[in-house]
Amino acid sequence: MNADERRYDYCFHPRLSAFIGGLNSLEPYRSRGSRPGAPILEEVTQHEYDPGRPIGVFDSGVGGLTVLKALRQRLPHQDFLYLGDTARVPYGRKPREMVQEFASEVVEFLIGKGVQAVVIACNTASACALPELAERTPAPVWGVIEPGVEAACRMTRSGSVGVIGTKGTIASGAYQKRLEARGLKVWAQACPMFVHLVEEGLADSPEAELMARYYLGHRPQIDTLILGCTHYPVLHEVIQRVTGGSVSLVSSAEVTAEMVKQALMPAAANGAPGRITHYVTGDVLAYKHTAEAIGGVEGELIPLDVTTLAREQPEETPYRIV
Amino acid sequence: MNADERRYDYCFHPRLSAFIGGLNSLEPYRSRGSRPGAPILEEVTQHEYDPGRPIGVFDSGVGGLTVLKALRQRLPHQDFLYLGDTARVPYGRKPREMVQEFASEVVEFLIGKGVQAVVIACNTASACALPELAERTPAPVWGVIEPGVEAACRMTRSGSVGVIGTKGTIASGAYQKRLEARGLKVWAQACPMFVHLVEEGLADSPEAELMARYYLGHRPQIDTLILGCTHYPVLHEVIQRVTGGSVSLVSSAEVTAEMVKQALMPAAANGAPGRITHYVTGDVLAYKHTAEAIGGVEGELIPLDVTTLAREQPEETPYRIV
Repeated sequence: MNADERRYDYCFHPRLSAFIGGLNSLEPYRSRGSRPGAPILEEVTQHEYDPGRPIGVFDSGVGGLTVLKALRQRLPHQDFLYLGDTARVPYGRKPREMVQEFASEVVEFLIGKGVQAVVIACNTASACALPELAERTPAPVWGVIEPGVEAACRMTRSGSVGVIGTKGTIASGAYQKRLEARGLKVWAQACPMFVHLVEEGLADSPEAELMARYYLGHRPQIDTLILGCTHYPVLHEVIQRVTGGSVSLVSSAEVTAEMVKQALMPAAANGAPGRITHYVTGDVLAYKHTAEAIGGVEGELIPLDVTTLAREQPEETPYRIV
Repeated sequence: MNADERRYDYCFHPRLSAFIGGLNSLEPYRSRGSRPGAPILEEVTQHEYDPGRPIGVFDSGVGGLTVLKALRQRLPHQDFLYLGDTARVPYGRKPREMVQEFASEVVEFLIGKGVQAVVIACNTASACALPELAERTPAPVWGVIEPGVEAACRMTRSGSVGVIGTKGTIASGAYQKRLEARGLKVWAQACPMFVHLVEEGLADSPEAELMARYYLGHRPQIDTLILGCTHYPVLHEVIQRVTGGSVSLVSSAEVTAEMVKQALMPAAANGAPGRITHYVTGDVLAYKHTAEAIGGVEGELIPLDVTTLAREQPEETPYRIV
């Protein structure tokens, strides 16, 4: 398998596809109507699939492009709006409240653009901001954690599973709580250097091998490992080499995309390929460059001034740090 | 030494301070007047020290705060404008032409703000954009490479020195060419994961130890090592532990600040402490958070829309990626 093929291949294990079926039992979080303190959003009552309206996909950076790609493979005629919040990346080491605020701003922006549903393709934001965020959003909101948990529950035979992710995701306990509630034994490990290895183009390097052995070498006996960060599929080969063939890897990108497709159940369409629009809060050329480590971007790229998202940072009024 | 002390201590080796003296022989690059194709800038003819005008300091992110801090220690009454181009960070793995363009935009912005001199506190930008950039800038422009080279030349006894930096800095050969031109034997090593270790708050961690041993373990016999990236001083302890006591570390932050001070030769002032203003192209809160790994920020923080810098990315006109 060459480097390009590796980048585009996120369905790792023959056993995984057999377990993906039936994921439509997973409901998205749904709005329960507005509540005091919630942002004022246009009320959207129809949650059924509307081929004319885009689906919003959101990540702190380029990692969520793995989820967008998996969605595109399943919904090729669907329009997508992808928001990469690269001006504020990475979310993984930021305080929970800050991530909640960022996620709330971004979802509000996407709803304002008329999306029919939102996929939070960011484990940190899913861990920190769901389900509270979904409760005040008048459209279905999916995260990447529930699908990963569901897939792991279906795949494990021993009942002992692992999950790796950013510091923020692991510290939130979001995966661990859900897996333990399903009766599984869980080993969790933060791997803060993995995202950087991917974005540096070092997925296949001695550095990646050293870091993977450091993070995964002391794992207990598990038979399933959730890659709880959208960047990690790019490290699939080194992770599989270190964990050995007896551990099945679960890519949240693939299982989330499958779940969204089945939940929306669109009629088979034969129209034109869907349009992709990327809103980028950081520099657009830098975004395109970094995305090459993930598999590249296609579609329209639109710079988005982060100050139009951030409610707390008026552009006109500098403030003094205390 | 506790963690806070370590962050603020960038003058590593007792021998270094003895060699910093006399660095005023290092001239900044000076404008040779405008030339065809150069941006139209207000002509500034006076290069002597003017206590009423700020000095501009520029880095792709928070790393240059080590240089700002070293400058502040030497010029406590001086005003500084620091520009952290965090919307486009990191520069280290971007193409040379892209870095040249970014640096040019930023210097033009700072000149427009009335700075009397610019310190490019970014090794990648210094390597890629000097001296061409300085030639069309009507104010002194210093980089961090010449001072580091000068200090290493004065420190080495064996004539064999090393330099570590980002991929971009090392690939540019900027340090190697200058050191070899001075008759030294040079070993150069890119350490792309070092910046990430610092920004993840992992300067004192098993990951840092592993990476330092990987990058530095195979070095030849050298007696001096230039830390050719403004983040690396934060890794001083682990680098010194791995290289052993016989290798002297040169911090470009310290030697650059000393050189700027001596070149400007300001009269001893007893006025109020200088004011610091930070312009940040990425998210301001994220900048402040990341800067905590470097030692924190003080002064005023002003968000700066990166599209006002970037000439090639009109905000109104989305474009299609080909």
